[in-house]
Amino acid sequence: MNKLTVTLSAVAVAASALFATPAAAQFAKAEDAIKYRKSAFTVLGAHFGRIGAVVKGERPFNAAEVQANAAVVETLSTLPWAAFGAGTDKGETRAKPEIWTSADKFKGGADQMQKAVAALSVAAKSGNLDQVKAAFGEAGKTCKGCHDNFRKD
Amino acid sequence: MNKLTVTLSAVAVAASALFATPAAAQFAKAEDAIKYRKSAFTVLGAHFGRIGAVVKGERPFNAAEVQANAAVVETLSTLPWAAFGAGTDKGETRAKPEIWTSADKFKGGADQMQKAVAALSVAAKSGNLDQVKAAFGEAGKTCKGCHDNFRKD
Repeated sequence: MNKLTVTLSAVAVAASALFATPAAAQFAKAEDAIKYRKSAFTVLGAHFGRIGAVVKGERPFNAAEVQANAAVVETLSTLPWAAFGAGTDKGETRAKPEIWTSADKFKGGADQMQKAVAALSVAAKSGNLDQVKAAFGEAGKTCKGCHDNFRKD
Repeated sequence: MNKLTVTLSAVAVAASALFATPAAAQFAKAEDAIKYRKSAFTVLGAHFGRIGAVVKGERPFNAAEVQANAAVVETLSTLPWAAFGAGTDKGETRAKPEIWTSADKFKGGADQMQKAVAALSVAAKSGNLDQVKAAFGEAGKTCKGCHDNFRKD
């Protein structure tokens, strides 16, 4: 098992292990949770956007680069959710109350997004731009779905 | 090759592929690069801090959780550097001019940090708290080294 495999296997358990810990236990203050989740979305969005630029033809298609960006997006996609704990609805956030009043719907959207970016990562591995375009489009819908329902303009 | 392996293999190429692209090509504006690198450090720091809480005995030792946090730290450790491109020294940043005037030293520190967090990830895989404590201490030194030299208070 080489170092990369070790690293990568470790990443694999991130989602489960992180979700296993209550958000309240992970953040000292609500503002820390808000800063954390916004930061995770910022990094995620930057890498998703780089794939988008390729999909739109604004950047040349480099399969390794798209694969790397998709992998970062997939890893980041597991992180923000634990930072939407109770009490993190106030402050420097565009989070709508529906995140907590419709928690099941929000969780469903988060799960859909994670599945879609995992599929994007697999598509990126194919090195086929058409597959990347299709998977990117599906993933983009899951972003927009939650932004429309759960994020203030 | 299962999905996790696919995902993880993809993460593996992130550093190389991302570094292969000039930062200037990745960020439309300097402020985007600054926000991105600060966000990456925020997420990295949050997960590093969770391991620190275990090392300090403030949180119980959960091997899977430490492993997951170390993996996130390792993945994030590859990202901020491409966002220190020319023109990103001004604005909402605590970056010192030395990042650009002593670029080789900064790059050396960034490389040391990435090696140290990779070692922390391996130590976390061992499930041995003493190994985690030792690797965490070494990694912490690399954080402090760059913060002392390249980050304003």
